[in-house]
Amino acid sequence: MRVVVPFDAGDPKTRLAPVLGAEERIAFAQAMRDDVCDSVLEAGGRPVLLSTEPIEHECPVRVDERALGTAVDAAVADTLEQAEACGVVMADCALASAEVIRRLGVGTEDAADAAITLVPARGGGTNALVIRDSRFETDFHGVSISDHRNAARSMGVSLREFDSYRLGTDVDVPGDLPEVLLHGRGRAVEWLADRFTLTTNDGRVTVERQ
Amino acid sequence: MRVVVPFDAGDPKTRLAPVLGAEERIAFAQAMRDDVCDSVLEAGGRPVLLSTEPIEHECPVRVDERALGTAVDAAVADTLEQAEACGVVMADCALASAEVIRRLGVGTEDAADAAITLVPARGGGTNALVIRDSRFETDFHGVSISDHRNAARSMGVSLREFDSYRLGTDVDVPGDLPEVLLHGRGRAVEWLADRFTLTTNDGRVTVERQ
Repeated sequence: MRVVVPFDAGDPKTRLAPVLGAEERIAFAQAMRDDVCDSVLEAGGRPVLLSTEPIEHECPVRVDERALGTAVDAAVADTLEQAEACGVVMADCALASAEVIRRLGVGTEDAADAAITLVPARGGGTNALVIRDSRFETDFHGVSISDHRNAARSMGVSLREFDSYRLGTDVDVPGDLPEVLLHGRGRAVEWLADRFTLTTNDGRVTVERQ
Repeated sequence: MRVVVPFDAGDPKTRLAPVLGAEERIAFAQAMRDDVCDSVLEAGGRPVLLSTEPIEHECPVRVDERALGTAVDAAVADTLEQAEACGVVMADCALASAEVIRRLGVGTEDAADAAITLVPARGGGTNALVIRDSRFETDFHGVSISDHRNAARSMGVSLREFDSYRLGTDVDVPGDLPEVLLHGRGRAVEWLADRFTLTTNDGRVTVERQ
């Protein structure tokens, strides 16, 4: 299955600015993105980077500078002209593993599966989808999981919600970084562990620069 | 499978005090606990409430006022005298569903499964376990997921990590309440939706009293 991996190549992960400089944010975002691509490949899927700007990468790159939802819908529609299903996994799903991507259905082409599969993210987001109906339109603003549920219901198609801590965790704010140190497996945790350590503060786990 | 559900019957959910009064915290904690018990029952498991104080409940209640880890270990050890496996699911796993409890292995008695199954929670916690070796000792303080991993490794037994957004989400702080409104299915979401609505603030989802 082709899996679209949207990536902001310009000024990524701005909400990490309190703890990471601009160049660090780019390097860390690239590490997370490459971990996602590796997991998709290992699961038997074919990652396509959907980038806001031209980039060099060993995976195929599709450049689209339009709004995220518009760009994703176009990439999905092109895929569905030749395939039963198209996956979408956000590039900041730093805990993604081949195992969970496989469990999502990537690597198999099971047409009996739901028309729309949604992977909820903390805070009402949607971190990943499998789309089998090109009429479905994504929208990643606001409480996207509710919007996506409503869109599937109003189309009257089958909807599945996929339950995963790994795929449900994206990395947006400094409070997300402990998750990478605790559960990451690839380049992102390696990059982060070179610079930060876990610490507990008032019973809550946080990260501290070395 | 017997599933121990630890519950603080005294002053539960103190970190929700900024948004819920003391009586509200008790009512909400009970609603979450009863949702967990319902999900375990529906999955074919047998919930046992492990309470810090005597309480009335339709499920069996075991009272133990010792520290959480000590009380859990004693309940698990007693269970493993008569069974292959014992589950533990925290009472504030408000998104637990019968489906995910079943996927965890409750309702089946698959002795081929790992000696220790851990369900990571956000922030380094452990929200649920399946224990098949009574030598394993739990400890829910600090970064418990790391401590539990190390304990299993030092015993040299098989370790499985269970990937679930539903079981990985517990409800400790006001920032967790949107998750209940977005994904809850039972009494807890009903109780909460009578008092709070979802709202977005600066692009982040939060709750607001009606």
